[in-house]
Amino acid sequence: MSEFKKVSRSENYSEWYNYIVDAAELAQHSAVKGCMVIKPYGYAIWEKMQADLDKRFKATGHSNAYFPLFIPKSLFEAEEKNAEGFAKECAVVTHYRLKADPNNKGKLIVDPEAKLTEELVVRPTSEAIIWNTYRGWIQSYRDLPILINQWANVVRWEMRTRLFLRTAEFLWQEGHTAHATKDEALAETKQMLEVYASFAEDIMAMPVIKGVKTANERFAGADETFCIEAMMQDGKALQAGTSHFLGQNFAKAFDVKFTGKDGKQDFVWATSWGVSTRLMGALIMTHSDDEGLVLPPKLAPIQVVIVPIFRSEEDLAAIAAKVEVIKFQLEEKGISVKFDQRDTLKPGFKFSEWELKGVPVRLAIGMRDLQNNTIEIARRDTKEKKSLSMDNLTHEVLTLLDDIQNNLYQRALNFRSERTKVVNSKEEFVKVLDEGGFALAHWDGLSETEDKIKEEFKATIRCIPLDNIREVGVCFFTGNPSQERVVFARAY
Amino acid sequence: MSEFKKVSRSENYSEWYNYIVDAAELAQHSAVKGCMVIKPYGYAIWEKMQADLDKRFKATGHSNAYFPLFIPKSLFEAEEKNAEGFAKECAVVTHYRLKADPNNKGKLIVDPEAKLTEELVVRPTSEAIIWNTYRGWIQSYRDLPILINQWANVVRWEMRTRLFLRTAEFLWQEGHTAHATKDEALAETKQMLEVYASFAEDIMAMPVIKGVKTANERFAGADETFCIEAMMQDGKALQAGTSHFLGQNFAKAFDVKFTGKDGKQDFVWATSWGVSTRLMGALIMTHSDDEGLVLPPKLAPIQVVIVPIFRSEEDLAAIAAKVEVIKFQLEEKGISVKFDQRDTLKPGFKFSEWELKGVPVRLAIGMRDLQNNTIEIARRDTKEKKSLSMDNLTHEVLTLLDDIQNNLYQRALNFRSERTKVVNSKEEFVKVLDEGGFALAHWDGLSETEDKIKEEFKATIRCIPLDNIREVGVCFFTGNPSQERVVFARAY
Repeated sequence: MSEFKKVSRSENYSEWYNYIVDAAELAQHSAVKGCMVIKPYGYAIWEKMQADLDKRFKATGHSNAYFPLFIPKSLFEAEEKNAEGFAKECAVVTHYRLKADPNNKGKLIVDPEAKLTEELVVRPTSEAIIWNTYRGWIQSYRDLPILINQWANVVRWEMRTRLFLRTAEFLWQEGHTAHATKDEALAETKQMLEVYASFAEDIMAMPVIKGVKTANERFAGADETFCIEAMMQDGKALQAGTSHFLGQNFAKAFDVKFTGKDGKQDFVWATSWGVSTRLMGALIMTHSDDEGLVLPPKLAPIQVVIVPIFRSEEDLAAIAAKVEVIKFQLEEKGISVKFDQRDTLKPGFKFSEWELKGVPVRLAIGMRDLQNNTIEIARRDTKEKKSLSMDNLTHEVLTLLDDIQNNLYQRALNFRSERTKVVNSKEEFVKVLDEGGFALAHWDGLSETEDKIKEEFKATIRCIPLDNIREVGVCFFTGNPSQERVVFARAY
Repeated sequence: MSEFKKVSRSENYSEWYNYIVDAAELAQHSAVKGCMVIKPYGYAIWEKMQADLDKRFKATGHSNAYFPLFIPKSLFEAEEKNAEGFAKECAVVTHYRLKADPNNKGKLIVDPEAKLTEELVVRPTSEAIIWNTYRGWIQSYRDLPILINQWANVVRWEMRTRLFLRTAEFLWQEGHTAHATKDEALAETKQMLEVYASFAEDIMAMPVIKGVKTANERFAGADETFCIEAMMQDGKALQAGTSHFLGQNFAKAFDVKFTGKDGKQDFVWATSWGVSTRLMGALIMTHSDDEGLVLPPKLAPIQVVIVPIFRSEEDLAAIAAKVEVIKFQLEEKGISVKFDQRDTLKPGFKFSEWELKGVPVRLAIGMRDLQNNTIEIARRDTKEKKSLSMDNLTHEVLTLLDDIQNNLYQRALNFRSERTKVVNSKEEFVKVLDEGGFALAHWDGLSETEDKIKEEFKATIRCIPLDNIREVGVCFFTGNPSQERVVFARAY
């Protein structure tokens, strides 16, 4: 079924991840270096993420719009820090035509006469093209705020790629808002962080730490970057979403001013925020096990699979008649159900396949069940199963789906708690990182200290938690004074 | 409000179109030649189109997936006709990095050391990358059919662009299916044409002619192209969707074979089909009038706008209390409602603004209405208005929305009927085209005749209608024998 060897998490976490992505048919590498194909089952999960996020964006007053894929180089370089941050990984369009190769029949070459006078950068992020557009939309405070989101593909040329986690092209949403005041922009930045955090926890069943990035880890062009950080099952951190307070940097770069109520002109305040198909990687690594994908019910394209146990065609027909009723009742409650009546495969094979694909609830029904009015129900997360009366099935399934959603969250939260340690020395620090986990350590606030720690331990400050307790201490690395602990980890 | 001068359709149809797109805030040109910004109101209409189409695709068994934006040149050129058809309009990525310009501080240049060994074409359509992927998915008949759709952006370098109608980058969906038999692939091609036709007629309220393209107008790489063609208010044709039977061309180019039930190997049969943001242009030009956009209720982001008529804050408060109840009742029925309580603008201004934006139903309510339990209801399509009792309002609004949807369709159908003429001579042909309309004419079936007609009259064969009556005649241009009439028109 999969080109990749089945391995357990403990054997080789990284190969296990590749196996799951492949075997559960989520995505694959393409003929284009670093670009992935998102397969239908993987895309169906992404669509569920999109639908839920989109609802949250609209509920907080945002509208969707669409801006060009290409950014002329002169616009791209206008906000210098942003440009510098992304210049090294830009795909650049230089020509707009191919022509027949005169030396090689049937082949094409780039037409040298179709060279663009100005190169176009394939967007790695859209602040530049969007703020260049906003200039034309904003004259006075009455034109503000602008609250826009875009669902799009972006390209960042990565040399070392991993499906979903780091790909040259990825899908994401990017919010870009414009405000009359600093406070309003900051409030927006924080609001969207909350939107991301509640999506991660309530829908993905993935606990996150909300925090702020250090200057070293900040988005290029931002005054402040807020983030949500999650812990994967190897104890490494994954940045799951970021919300940037951009200050007036882009307004200044693109000369976007507005006239306030007082008649005075000022530059506009900005935010941007995004999550991407990287969340697919986070989802996989948070819940899945050695048997395959584990999906929280709220994101499962198929929430319940029904497998008939039969010997003859007549058996199957009798079971199918009953299953149609069950399926209808479940679907009426908004549950998505798959009836797997393939007649060339054994039940055991089907059980494994749906386990691999992470379907939260499996129902199995045979002839004896028909006689006894019973059905077997199995949950993917704990692999427990039991026999039930069919009378109350819909209610039982609904309860179980809720229970699985909650259990996955609680399990991930417990895992993170166990692996999050307060450390006060280099020895303790290294121990936590090597075992896999978050180290809560005092840091002296200096970028150069952060750089040295990164070099020595391959660990970075994931964030300074928003709900941090102020606590006087000394930096574990330099012994300098410190006001609070920050979260260190190795990261994806 | 708009940079463009307000003009009527009869004065200058093309400028009128530009005015509507701009004034209704649907889209605008961007800093990138040929690429558009789709503004929130325009995008909201596109989202409604997407949601409805997506439902239809899923109901006919298709799943969404995602394939890379880039196509390596060697894959792009594999299907020669397809490559030849698109080579002249390809954006080509040649480099993957920018670097600081040593001669110009703060500026960037393309890094000559980051030249790709193989150029990447930005997809103008995805057959090549998808069929290269399908090769790995298909071994036997059990792997077929594959029924996949993709929502994506594509790029075709156009020199003369018009918002929505012809842009270098546009948004679309492209279905790509793989089948074991020719018949099944042909049935799929026709099924998707029906899906497009019913979407166009039932949702866009835009009548279409279903037909097949001549060889001259066929998609590059297809054996047969089916299409839906609509008539705009200037009598010109607009191709609104295409569904291609690709035969085994792509399977042969990418060596995609399958083993049949009989154990024999054969090449896989293919279809592809797509509609794009061009439909936005079609929608605008089918229904809108000199006052602005006219939207069919099924695609209107705001279906009902409520404008309060008030003198004082107390009046507004009293009206608002009543409106909240009305709004709630309408929304309960799934109607989208906007209550425009801006207090700095006069009702007349608001009326014009919502007319310009094509909101199908306007309710106006003043203090006298409150006393009399009445409300004024106005429909955008005919601009009729009347006073109603509030008692039965929800029912009246629902009925009116249905009526507007049907009326728009019928109006467009009548318009097309009046402008579709049987012609038997060059004189009649020219007259129909110059007045704006479809000419049903005999044609001798020769590509060269078609070319000459195109050169002389700037008209093309839009399609050979599927429901054509066979009728012996002579070609109006050459006098050669002909078996049926075809649809000629000038086209967008």
